[in-house]
Amino acid sequence: MSQGSINSDLAKERQKATFNVENLSVLLHGGPAKLKRKRYIENLVCEDLFYRQLKPWSYCSIEEQYENALIKHIHAKKQIEKHGIKDRNDLMTYRVSAFPHEADPIGINTSMFIPALEQQGTEEQKANWLPLAHQETIIGTYAQTEIGHGTFLRGLETTATYDPKTKEFVLNTPSLSATKFWPAGLGKTANHCVVVAQLYTQGKCHGIHIFMLQLRSLEDHSLLPGIETGVIGNKFGFGTNDNGYLKLNSVRIPRDNMLMRYSKVLEDGTYIRPENPKVTYGVMVLVRSFIVRNAAVFLAEACTIAIRYSAVRRQSELTPGGIEPQILDYQTQQYRLLPLLSTAYAFHFASTNMTETYERISQQIEGGRLDQLPQLHALAAGLKAFTTYASSAGIEICRICCGGHGYSHASGLPKIYVCAVPGCTYEGENTVMMLQVARYLMKCYRDKQQGRSLPGFVSYIGESMEKKSFMGADVSFTCLIKAYKHRAARLIEEAAKQMQSCIQAGSPAHVAWNKSSVQLFLAANAHCHLFCVENFIDSIRDCKVDSNTLKVLNEVCQLYGVHGIIENLGEFMQDNFLTGQHVDYLQKKMLTLFELMRPNAVALVDAFDFPDHKLESCLGRYDGQVYQALYDYAKMAPMNQTEVHSTYYKHLRPLMSGNSKL
Amino acid sequence: MSQGSINSDLAKERQKATFNVENLSVLLHGGPAKLKRKRYIENLVCEDLFYRQLKPWSYCSIEEQYENALIKHIHAKKQIEKHGIKDRNDLMTYRVSAFPHEADPIGINTSMFIPALEQQGTEEQKANWLPLAHQETIIGTYAQTEIGHGTFLRGLETTATYDPKTKEFVLNTPSLSATKFWPAGLGKTANHCVVVAQLYTQGKCHGIHIFMLQLRSLEDHSLLPGIETGVIGNKFGFGTNDNGYLKLNSVRIPRDNMLMRYSKVLEDGTYIRPENPKVTYGVMVLVRSFIVRNAAVFLAEACTIAIRYSAVRRQSELTPGGIEPQILDYQTQQYRLLPLLSTAYAFHFASTNMTETYERISQQIEGGRLDQLPQLHALAAGLKAFTTYASSAGIEICRICCGGHGYSHASGLPKIYVCAVPGCTYEGENTVMMLQVARYLMKCYRDKQQGRSLPGFVSYIGESMEKKSFMGADVSFTCLIKAYKHRAARLIEEAAKQMQSCIQAGSPAHVAWNKSSVQLFLAANAHCHLFCVENFIDSIRDCKVDSNTLKVLNEVCQLYGVHGIIENLGEFMQDNFLTGQHVDYLQKKMLTLFELMRPNAVALVDAFDFPDHKLESCLGRYDGQVYQALYDYAKMAPMNQTEVHSTYYKHLRPLMSGNSKL
Ligand SMILES: Cc1cc2nc3c(=O)[nH]c(=O)nc-3n(C[C@H](O)[C@H](O)[C@H](O)COP(=O)(O)OP(=O)(O)OC[C@H]3O[C@@H](n4cnc5c(N)ncnc54)[C@H](O)[C@@H]3O)c2cc1C
Ligand SMILES: Cc1cc2nc3c(=O)[nH]c(=O)nc-3n(C[C@H](O)[C@H](O)[C@H](O)COP(=O)(O)OP(=O)(O)OC[C@H]3O[C@@H](n4cnc5c(N)ncnc54)[C@H](O)[C@@H]3O)c2cc1C
Repeated sequence: MSQGSINSDLAKERQKATFNVENLSVLLHGGPAKLKRKRYIENLVCEDLFYRQLKPWSYCSIEEQYENALIKHIHAKKQIEKHGIKDRNDLMTYRVSAFPHEADPIGINTSMFIPALEQQGTEEQKANWLPLAHQETIIGTYAQTEIGHGTFLRGLETTATYDPKTKEFVLNTPSLSATKFWPAGLGKTANHCVVVAQLYTQGKCHGIHIFMLQLRSLEDHSLLPGIETGVIGNKFGFGTNDNGYLKLNSVRIPRDNMLMRYSKVLEDGTYIRPENPKVTYGVMVLVRSFIVRNAAVFLAEACTIAIRYSAVRRQSELTPGGIEPQILDYQTQQYRLLPLLSTAYAFHFASTNMTETYERISQQIEGGRLDQLPQLHALAAGLKAFTTYASSAGIEICRICCGGHGYSHASGLPKIYVCAVPGCTYEGENTVMMLQVARYLMKCYRDKQQGRSLPGFVSYIGESMEKKSFMGADVSFTCLIKAYKHRAARLIEEAAKQMQSCIQAGSPAHVAWNKSSVQLFLAANAHCHLFCVENFIDSIRDCKVDSNTLKVLNEVCQLYGVHGIIENLGEFMQDNFLTGQHVDYLQKKMLTLFELMRPNAVALVDAFDFPDHKLESCLGRYDGQVYQALYDYAKMAPMNQTEVHSTYYKHLRPLMSGNSKL
Repeated sequence: MSQGSINSDLAKERQKATFNVENLSVLLHGGPAKLKRKRYIENLVCEDLFYRQLKPWSYCSIEEQYENALIKHIHAKKQIEKHGIKDRNDLMTYRVSAFPHEADPIGINTSMFIPALEQQGTEEQKANWLPLAHQETIIGTYAQTEIGHGTFLRGLETTATYDPKTKEFVLNTPSLSATKFWPAGLGKTANHCVVVAQLYTQGKCHGIHIFMLQLRSLEDHSLLPGIETGVIGNKFGFGTNDNGYLKLNSVRIPRDNMLMRYSKVLEDGTYIRPENPKVTYGVMVLVRSFIVRNAAVFLAEACTIAIRYSAVRRQSELTPGGIEPQILDYQTQQYRLLPLLSTAYAFHFASTNMTETYERISQQIEGGRLDQLPQLHALAAGLKAFTTYASSAGIEICRICCGGHGYSHASGLPKIYVCAVPGCTYEGENTVMMLQVARYLMKCYRDKQQGRSLPGFVSYIGESMEKKSFMGADVSFTCLIKAYKHRAARLIEEAAKQMQSCIQAGSPAHVAWNKSSVQLFLAANAHCHLFCVENFIDSIRDCKVDSNTLKVLNEVCQLYGVHGIIENLGEFMQDNFLTGQHVDYLQKKMLTLFELMRPNAVALVDAFDFPDHKLESCLGRYDGQVYQALYDYAKMAPMNQTEVHSTYYKHLRPLMSGNSKL
């Protein structure tokens, strides 16, 4: 297709932006050096003919998707070596660039198998297995979830029974529901896994522990005795990954295969309990912080596609008989897309904050200080749930905003969606996560009531506050934060009171908890929302960027705050904190912000700096040549390689002549 | 797998229901005879070995999906003939049963091509083409949308220029964006289409008209000269359908190929305009009423799957150390699923009403009375948008409520979603539809202000109403209806006033319209919501069913009304119509309704009476044997047919040994 020429509507959008896109990109990516490095690495992938010549993923069968992912993994590994890429961020940049919205079937070896070994293994175990895992002779996965249990780890049924006679553990899948199910790469790829199982020794169950298990021969990849695995079958997305199942029938592993850094089973079968089990929380927090980052990125990508397309697409009439407007000029289109754009920015800053907080607190933990862990844990769980849910729902809105073409894989949006949405489920199901946050908030509330002071961000809980908002037509940041604080504090208090009143009415605590869990959920949600708003405001207050850019960021931030209230109005109005007059201000403000942001919409998505090959979207291309790209995409379809499809001879011709033998 | 045994939790659920499921099924399906007939026909499909032996759709490549759909079409045709199925409802039942959540590539021949001919063709044209189309020698499609235009029909670019010398039309695709794009079956299946094109004759454009065009030879299916078609490439769903593109290069068709029942072009090129173009609105309304029905069914199916599974799935703890509860016992799970269940019921009754209204008004139209057409048109457009959006979003919530397994195709939910969600886009993009409703409402508002009376359901607009709700703790139906009326009326008035104030501030009408369109959208949405609530209440008020069933239906209906307010609280509180005290009543009521509905939840989905083969869901099975079904589904995966996958030899082995040649 004709390269180089930029669609004139997009070109105009870029001209009329009121700020310097590069400055904003630099800010978002953590400085000029990091941005440069990111581009350098993305460019390695983009210019690598190897990736370009692969069949487009949407035309691949599941087996081809899987095979291509393996091939890509191997190629990527060599390139990473060749270019000496070592920094963790750089590696991530390379991988997401080479695997856009795809799950590398060997990825879990690095992301979960090796970390589990590093954290739970003894020095000897690490020395044994880590080198082989790093060079990918051992390809491992993390086998935790079973058909019958995902959320409730204590309910896992797989057993590891110590046999002191042979000094082995005997692993078993005692029932159908105990079948391991879902672990990434387990079906056909992995030859090892760490398996989570109930430890039995000396006739007693000691709860779940982690064991190293070889699944397949390193000679010929055949399954070892007593082991049955396979893929779990096709899924909504994740076609590149052979998520698998595993059944164990009296599989014996040496005693040394239990990861024994913390708990131990001695030769005679004596169980030694761990000293401080909390230290393992760190990984969970880290993984959740990645998920938050992904949620921010996925939504930003979807906004990039939908907003660029909305600047190129012209449809219907605004002025009678006039030329068709860019659909981005419809107020309803702005209403659906611009708040999502502001959300993508909010999540970006939330994710940055979370990563920094994680690093800060991790150091404290290393130094033995665990007091901030609950706060960090609640933040990670809450933001994980809050951002994945909003991001997934938002991606679908972006897709629908692209009209019919959004439904084609050519748009790139379905792939982003099916890659994003399981983030609501894995690594802590979202509702369960929110209820964990609520548990923490209830504890904070009780602490405050008992006169204890609360740490940093939760200190607003239980404080006495203004009963009415002083918000004016300008809708200041101060008034926004106060409103979100008020709402969260009120909902937390209400949830606590509701629990209290259930208990007073005779319910046991756990029943009261369940009977209040809708309120608890809403309270936790409001708390996370407050975090995102307040953090956005704080982040741009402190940021070093030119005044034009700052002005635009302020608008984006204000829209995030204003729109969030409008979407959840009842929660702000229920106790008359906000009144009809305030709502009027907020609605007017929102429409004004749409007008202010409209000219900068394309520039604001450009600033995310996604290369075309990562978006994989005919609609979201930087050059805006969307129709040519859609047509080219169609032409590539395997079914278009013949004029008359084979089914004509087999089925249509007999049907047409009334002679079908079927 | 072990057939016949019902999961004991499900069995208990069914025992404890407080009403007779069969009675409710009879009511939902329009009487015992219709229910019996429905089951008879579904059973024909269920017991037909032909369907059972086809490879499960989720394991098929796109080409296999397409081929299987053709095979099924041919088989279904024969069976329909054999069993003498003729009634339109019966045919629909057979087809959706044989093609669950799939788009038959020849379906559009019956659903749009033939109806277009019937309505727009002259008697001679009908005599020519209809018999061939019915016997499927001619396989037609409806080619309207272009790459560049879907919503805005007047913008279509394809041209049909009359050449009086040869008495032919010359069809052309004058630009890339004029390429027809999306029509069902156009890629590889159809040999004819009706094509929508701008008619030019005697040097003048007369707007869009419909032309019969042969695409492929009836001898060998090769493309006729000047015609280029192909599939548009893979999509989110609709894999069974070869949605296609079409480019025309000076294709000549006889003058007789213009469908000339209304407009005509004479031999010399004189254009005769139609008498009453409005009559064609009928089809649009009919098609939209089908979409509403589908939206209701899809959501009901998703609720069936998620609620049955939530009764079988046990996870986590409610009582410390107690047995794991059914997840349906978690209040948060009820909060997400039960309102959706009530929505599925509300949409069922909305769809029934719409079909009846359509039939009533159609007869009036046949009799020449067109005065009710605008009302019907607005109802169809509004309900189409309102129900498809809520249904699609609801299906995803149901899916996420199934945890990890919801993400597998084994759950059946992804297929339902990708089949349902394009309903938001085709046959009138939802936002555009809502704005059409708003246009009608604005007209009503003006009429009322000018002292004219309004027809039936819109008569509340502009009426003077109570300023505050009298709602008590019981939350009566009367108070619910008043609340929804008040909200809709207020939003309509606000939108009208906002337009007015824009105009007074100097905006031309069309600018004022766009500047008010968020308000207009919200007003139309509130109007549709009111319809669904009021219609639900009216429908069960009049219905003939035993008192136990009626009691349960009343609860479902009340939940629909109560939850809808809670979700949109701000719109009810903004002018203090509802106050904090009311909100308190509503929230308490909602929780009480959850407790009342909980024991009937499974029975309420059973009453929809979906056979297992239509749900295609391991999680939603009537017998609740979900884990066995998930395991069986996994075993069937093509990748599980060998223990060691071929990629091991090609890629993994070299990788593991560090010898990859890639
Ligand atoms: C794409 C994908 C990849 C995955 N990869 C892996 C992997 O590599 N390794 C691995 O081990 N696993 C993996 N999993 C599994 C995943 O970790 C689990 O699905 C996840 O933990 C959710 O658990 P569940 O499926 O048991 O959901 P459930 O807990 O069964 O959730 C079902 C419903 O019950 C509700 N619920 C459950 N408990 C409570 C409670 N206490 N209170 C209120 N409500 C509750 C939930 O809110 C939800 O609505 C993967 C899953 C997916 C989808
Ligand atoms: C699965 C599927 C099957 C299809 N089958 C067929 C078929 O068989 N035959 C056929 O001819 N077509 C078919 N189509 C095409 C379909 O009819 C169009 O996609 C649909 O009409 C929407 O039009 P569009 O794509 O131009 O959306 P657009 O109009 O481009 O919509 C994009 C955005 O612009 C906004 N917008 C547009 N106009 C306005 C306005 N006036 N005011 C405010 N906002 C506006 C919309 O709200 C939307 O957010 C199919 C599409 C799909 C997805």
